[in-house]
Formats: sequence, C-alpha cells, structure tokens
Amino acid sequence: MATVDLNADMGESFGSWKMGDDESLLGIVTSANVACGFHAGDAVVMGRTCKAAAERGVCVGAHVSYRDLAGFGRSFVDVDPARLRDEVIYQLSALRGVAAVHGASVRYVKPHGALYNTIVHHEAQARAVVEAIVAVNSATDSDVAILGLPGALVLDLAEQQGVRALREAFADRAYNPDGTLVSRSQEGSVLHDPDEVAERVVKLVTQGVVTAIDGTEVSIQADSVCVHGDTPGAVAMATAVRDRLAAAGVELRAVA
Amino acid sequence: MATVDLNADMGESFGSWKMGDDESLLGIVTSANVACGFHAGDAVVMGRTCKAAAERGVCVGAHVSYRDLAGFGRSFVDVDPARLRDEVIYQLSALRGVAAVHGASVRYVKPHGALYNTIVHHEAQARAVVEAIVAVNSATDSDVAILGLPGALVLDLAEQQGVRALREAFADRAYNPDGTLVSRSQEGSVLHDPDEVAERVVKLVTQGVVTAIDGTEVSIQADSVCVHGDTPGAVAMATAVRDRLAAAGVELRAVA
Amino acid sequence: MATVDLNADMGESFGSWKMGDDESLLGIVTSANVACGFHAGDAVVMGRTCKAAAERGVCVGAHVSYRDLAGFGRSFVDVDPARLRDEVIYQLSALRGVAAVHGASVRYVKPHGALYNTIVHHEAQARAVVEAIVAVNSATDSDVAILGLPGALVLDLAEQQGVRALREAFADRAYNPDGTLVSRSQEGSVLHDPDEVAERVVKLVTQGVVTAIDGTEVSIQADSVCVHGDTPGAVAMATAVRDRLAAAGVELRAVA
Amino acid sequence: MATVDLNADMGESFGSWKMGDDESLLGIVTSANVACGFHAGDAVVMGRTCKAAAERGVCVGAHVSYRDLAGFGRSFVDVDPARLRDEVIYQLSALRGVAAVHGASVRYVKPHGALYNTIVHHEAQARAVVEAIVAVNSATDSDVAILGLPGALVLDLAEQQGVRALREAFADRAYNPDGTLVSRSQEGSVLHDPDEVAERVVKLVTQGVVTAIDGTEVSIQADSVCVHGDTPGAVAMATAVRDRLAAAGVELRAVA
Repeated sequence: MATVDLNADMGESFGSWKMGDDESLLGIVTSANVACGFHAGDAVVMGRTCKAAAERGVCVGAHVSYRDLAGFGRSFVDVDPARLRDEVIYQLSALRGVAAVHGASVRYVKPHGALYNTIVHHEAQARAVVEAIVAVNSATDSDVAILGLPGALVLDLAEQQGVRALREAFADRAYNPDGTLVSRSQEGSVLHDPDEVAERVVKLVTQGVVTAIDGTEVSIQADSVCVHGDTPGAVAMATAVRDRLAAAGVELRAVA
Repeated sequence: MATVDLNADMGESFGSWKMGDDESLLGIVTSANVACGFHAGDAVVMGRTCKAAAERGVCVGAHVSYRDLAGFGRSFVDVDPARLRDEVIYQLSALRGVAAVHGASVRYVKPHGALYNTIVHHEAQARAVVEAIVAVNSATDSDVAILGLPGALVLDLAEQQGVRALREAFADRAYNPDGTLVSRSQEGSVLHDPDEVAERVVKLVTQGVVTAIDGTEVSIQADSVCVHGDTPGAVAMATAVRDRLAAAGVELRAVA
Repeated sequence: MATVDLNADMGESFGSWKMGDDESLLGIVTSANVACGFHAGDAVVMGRTCKAAAERGVCVGAHVSYRDLAGFGRSFVDVDPARLRDEVIYQLSALRGVAAVHGASVRYVKPHGALYNTIVHHEAQARAVVEAIVAVNSATDSDVAILGLPGALVLDLAEQQGVRALREAFADRAYNPDGTLVSRSQEGSVLHDPDEVAERVVKLVTQGVVTAIDGTEVSIQADSVCVHGDTPGAVAMATAVRDRLAAAGVELRAVA
Repeated sequence: MATVDLNADMGESFGSWKMGDDESLLGIVTSANVACGFHAGDAVVMGRTCKAAAERGVCVGAHVSYRDLAGFGRSFVDVDPARLRDEVIYQLSALRGVAAVHGASVRYVKPHGALYNTIVHHEAQARAVVEAIVAVNSATDSDVAILGLPGALVLDLAEQQGVRALREAFADRAYNPDGTLVSRSQEGSVLHDPDEVAERVVKLVTQGVVTAIDGTEVSIQADSVCVHGDTPGAVAMATAVRDRLAAAGVELRAVA
C-alpha cells in the first residue's frame, strides 16, 4: 500500500498578526513545518502550534529561516555561514524545547523561503544548515531529518553527514521537463484548481510521475508533498488532495 | 569546609557590539548567567559563551529576560503572564540546545534586570517564570533551579512547585538592616573598593553576615554570590573576591 | 452646523502580515492614525497608507507607541522618559517624511495602546510625549496636535506647553457615569450593535451627552470620535456611524 | 587653497552597547555619517549624536542601511527595491527630524556596509536609493546629496536624477592600480600606520593621486575622505590625518 506525507507551513502568525488557518490544516496534514521566530512565529504561537499538533498526532518540523521578521525570510541574505549554523541550532533548539513541553518532538528541519531556495545550490550555507542538524543530533542523541527539494545540494551534504534527507514535492506547483519547479515569475507556475492539483498528487504518489508544463511526463521522487496554508482556498485544496489520496487507497503517514 | 558559588552575567554582547570581559570572568567564577537573546546575546554569542564555559568547567545558567533588546531588559514590562511563561520556555530551551551542542548543560535560570526585580513581589509574573521551569523540567526530566533574591516571592513559589530555589547575594551592593538591598538611587548603594568587597564576601560566606549600611550586622543566607562583569574594574574586583575566599579556605563550587 | 472628526487606526499591517481594512476605512473616516513602526507598520506600509490617505483627503496622525512589535504596544513599559521622548521624536519624524513624500502632512499625534492609557495619569511619560511634540513643532515650525482621552494629564500638559489638545470619544465603548470608559474587563464595556453605536455617536456629537452604563446621561466633550478598524464588523459599524451622522446633518471634518 | 571633507561613521552605539569614540572624532572630522536605527543607532543615540555634531558644527549625513541590527548591515540582502526605497525614505526622514530638533540638518546620505558595496553595481538597489533621495528632496525642497565610491553606479544614477554625487576616498585602504579598493580579504588591504596614512591623504588631496599597492601612481578624485572610528587607534589615525592636512595648508570643510 502506497503511503505519503503531507506537510504544510504552520505557526506563521506573529504577536497580534494572524496568518494561515492552522486549525483546519492540522486536521488534514501529517507534518507541520513550525516557524521558530526568525521569519514568523513567537514563543506563544510556537507553543500553541506544537500543542495543537501534538493533540492531532501531527509530526512537528522546524521551519528555520534567516533572521528577517520584516521580510518574512523571503530575501536571500548573504549571512556568514558560521552565524547561519548557530542560528539554525538556536531555532531548532528553541522549538525542540517548546515542542517537548507540549508532548511533541521535532523530527525534521525544513528551511524556509529564501534559505530553502538558496541551499539548493549555495554550498557554504547548505553545509551550515547540515552542520547545525548534525550538531543537535549528536548532542541530543536525536535523528532530526532534513526536508528539501529533490536534487538540492543540501540533501546530498546531509546524507554525507548521516542526516536523513527527505525529498519534497509541491502539490500546486508546475514542473519543468527536467523535474525542476517552474519559476514563480512564469505564467502557469502555480496551479489553482483543487481537482487538478489533487489528481496530480495522486499520480505523483502512486506512479512517481507528474505532467510537466510542456505536457511531458517527468519522474519525481517525493517523500513528502507540500500543501500551502496561507492562500485563499488553501484549506479546500488541501482537503481535496487528502480526500483524493484516500480514495486512491494511499495512506497518509508522517515520514520523519 | 565552607563552599560558595560565584556567578556573573555573561554573553551580553550582541551582533557587532561587545560587552563585558567574559574570557577573564570565566577564569574566576563558577557559574555563568548566559543571556538568551531577549535582552542581549544572539545565537553566535550564546554558542561562543557556552563553549568557553564548558571548556572552563563553569556551570551554565539561563539569564532570561523580557523581550527588550533596545532597553537591555532594564524596564518593567507589564507583559501577559502566559506570554512571559512561553517566552521563558523559549529562551531556556534555546540555551539548553546551544549548551548541549558545546557539551554544557543549563542548570539554573536567573531572571535578568527588571524581570529579576519584578518577580520579587509580582505574583503573576513570578508564577509564570516558575511554571516555565516546571514545564521544561517535567518535559525533559531535568532539574533546572532558579536563582533569585532571598525572600523573593518567586523563590517561595518555586519551592512549592518542586523547583530548587537558590538564594543570591551581591558582592558589591550595600544592604539595609532588614537584609534588602540599598536602592541604587541611594548614595553608597554600590561598593567600589575591591578589598572591602572581598572582605565582605568572605564574612558573608564564612559567618553568614554582612555589615549593613547603618553599621549593624545582618544575617544573609546565600547559595551564590554575584560579581559584576560589565563595569570598569569588574575583573579586578572579581579576582580579589576569589583570592580572598581562597585565602580563607573557602572552596568555590557551582551550586546548581 | 455641527461637525465632527472620525478617526481610526490604520497602517497596522507589518511585513507579510495584514491587519485591518484600511482601504474601506479610508472611504469613511476623516483622520487616519498611522502606525510608525514601533508597534506595527513598516516603511512600506507607512508609505502605502500615507499615499492612500492623501488621495482620499484623509488627515494623517502619528500613532506612536512603545517599542514593542511582538506585543503590539499593548503592555505598559516603564521606559525612561528621556528615551520615550526621543522615540516619539523618531517615530513622528519618520512618518512626517514618509507622509511628505506622498503629499500628506502629519497633523496630530495619537499615542497607541498602553502608552495612550498610561499618559492619562503617568506624569513623566506624559511629559515626555508632550516634549517630543514641542520639540518637533518648534524645530519645524509646525502645529502638530495631540489626541487623547478627555481629562488625561497629557492633554493638560500639552496645553500648558502650547500644543493643541484634542479630545477623543470612542464610538463603541461604554462609559461610566463619571465620563471615564468602562474597563474592557467588565461586561458590556464594548458595544457591538452598529445601529446602537451610530445612535450614540449622533447624540454625543449633537447634544454632547452619552448614556452611561447605568442609564444616566453624562456630558462628554469630543473633538474626534474613534471608530475601530481591526475587528469583525468594523467597517459596517463605521459606515453606520458615518451615515447616521450625515442623516443628522453633521458634517465630517478633520479637526487637526 | 585646497579643501577637503573628512567623514566618519558615528552614532553606532545601540541601547546599552557602545561603539566608537564619537566624542573624540567629532573634534576632528567635518562630516558625521549618523546611523539611523537599521544597522545601528536608536532614537536616543541619534539624538545625542546630532546634538553633539550640531554643537561642533559638524555636518550630518544619514548612514542608511539594510534592516539588519543583528548583522550590523554587513551582509547583502536581496531586498525588494521598492521596499529598500521606502526604508531609505524612512531612515532619512527619521534622522532629518531628529537632527532638526537639535539644530542640525541632514545634508547627505551615505549608504552603509553591504548596501554601500552593493550599489556600486546593483542597478535596482542603486536606483531605489536614488529614488528615495529624490523623493525626499522633492517633497521637502531639500538638496540632500549622496556619498559613494568613485565610479559607483549609484553616483551615475544620482547625477542623472539631479542628486549631487560626492565621491569618497578611504584614508586607510590600499588601492589597486585601476583605482578600485584592494579587497579586505587580501593582505595589505588595510593600512595601520598613522603617519603613512596621513601622508597618503595629503598627497591624495593636494595632488589627486595615491600610490597603489603595486607602487604605481593612480588618480583618485575625492570630495570626502573617510576615516574610521571603531578600530583601535582610530582616533590617533584621524588626528594624524587632520594635523598633516593642516600642516600642508589644506582646509577641512564639509562638502555637503
């Protein structure tokens, strides 16, 4: 029987500002990428999110970021790699403690936003993120994994260092024939029809292929599928994905 | 043989700004109150401080604060107690992880600045700090203690909740006849002569008394004595205290 | 013909987080209290808000606050008055420049949240806010006013220093028989029915009285009436207030 | 008679953290690049620095930066240009107001750190900085200039938009034969001997040439010479530069 993990970004409110419909998404996904206070989230939001995830049996991951609340971690920062490593240790550690208080444990790291995209290719920053995970795993006898884009340099480095590398597909993103994502600046890069998206995810999970933007079939290996939570219609789309997967006999199960 | 713990604030640099002479102080004290990023410190500074403390065998404590970098945590903030509890969990957890990576463990919490003074009497905030420690201890099977002013409400609440309460004296502060500190706004509240300060600490540790500002003798029970690190002459004073204690046959030993 | 100013808080989004329906409110009110980056708002949000206000002919005020993004300026901070003065100068100056770029000018200061409530009675902080306005007015040959609670100490101090003091009433808040606001912690302190609220505002503006929570009539002098923008139904309520005032022949006109 | 402007970074303290010896430097330089709160400085520090500059008759410039206190503005941030423009408007406006309160006026913008280096070549960000200055100049009928590296794209764009472009040389930096700065990562890039540095500055100012790192003479046109304030020996070096210029009959005069 096929299984797949559905993940979504969570806990991206900050102070008095709300973002996303975490409550609804937690009823759908199997893994929650929880912001750690550097691009979003704060101590209160993190606690609330971990508590809710634990109650729903949803797996918790650390959604680590550049230190950039004002920019929501969406801009590349040419930060010193040693500082980046320490900042990932800090964020991961903070979330681990908060999660523990609420009966959850942090099973993986998913870098956020610009950091996610940068460490597809930026070796020094990719290495810094991996070193942070290695350091925390080693110090706490843990097995925190990393979730990233298939083919990303950071996943190769992770595996070389003994960190489990999990590959992620995106439910609502168009793919190029070579398996990379169609740039957001290009028309058609984001899919909006819940039925179409759900259909694609089923095909991806059961057959390991997606139809690329040019109509060709492309092989994609994915341990987890990301659904978005902060856009209009996000919950409806995530629900459609989950239901279609269930109808196809695919079991939803956290991978980390 | 008498023993005492000497503690000092550490890791209060931030980004490109330096504060204190941590390197020298770590050669003198037995406990380091390490800032956690809310009033001072950042991920890099925390890592460097924990590493140095671990190398010197100095015990690490979490110097938790109101969220107030611009004000260095020196102003009272009427923060919601539930938020304060979560913020202490966050800070303590972050430092625990950073310390673990460098082979150290966090043995106590010392609230900083305005928070320290507030929870001498402010029940809701005192309770919030204690609840944070209880939550972390319970979730991680730890025994993190709290360090505070003798007689502080927070220490009573801590003991009621099974948290070890450690009492702190101040090497360079004058005392009132009732055992409270002379307000900083009052003349003579801070002592500057290293010899006099060292002499007072020896008397405090070996006899349990200090000479109050009016000349009377007052009993003070202290598990730890705080020496300052961020003032001119701080290292010289701390050195004098340590040497005089050694000459008096007092063993320096971390209490937490 | 009776006139009144309607004001509302604006520009309280921050980075990627949205708050309030500024676009709709700007079609209703005559004065916009624009956040200056200390409790909410950032350079982009401030620019967008000032531009929109200028286009609608809505008067701009500086919604200054304690430096507290994470707490949205809702907690009292026992900040040093000299620092508070400088922080108000900074915020007011930043908004003045941003407004000027978009063809608007800042006509008044409305302290936000906890600062608003504190300077009803806290003399040192009230004086600091007034000194900031005096300093900016004097340096720039301006006539920035202050908007506050009738009877607030800050308004008295402002008038003593030659700063125009504008008194504010709240459309949706219940009043005590002595003219003070019913505390939010008390039942019935906030009114939710748009018709009732609109009716009260008309009576307040045309007769200078409101019905207090105990049914007695109380005199309230108000230069401006605050309508809220960040609650569900806020726009509907503000619309009802505006329409009822128009029907009663009251002209809406910015007071500052 | 030859004249030259000496500029230095100022007001880079933050909260309780001190940086630089502004008091001494203000007795030497003719222009002060005052941090605006984005990489350093806060409302109190800005006020104090502007006041001191005004008392000494030192010209004030806005040392604007990426929003990055933790990194001191030293890392490139791939920020959206529209946001960067708004952030420069915000910083410049805040400093203009603070300066006005203390009797000073802001005469130029000097971008800081990574932003300074980026807009030597990054067109979108360079344009954003220029647009910010144009917007403020136009709205306030001012003539704020920009200070940058000779040959920088931002200076060309500034001149095209009617903003005065001032070219800066560095007293203690080695030059390549093509007139660019020797990279800091290269040996010999920074000069440490006050006499040698002072000699070079005199030659630069009086003859328009410096001796490049390979011994060749290179022409450099500089409207202002930057001396550093935050390194050991900074004040001694700045003093040597000033004295040697005086001995050579060069008049120190703010250029902006």
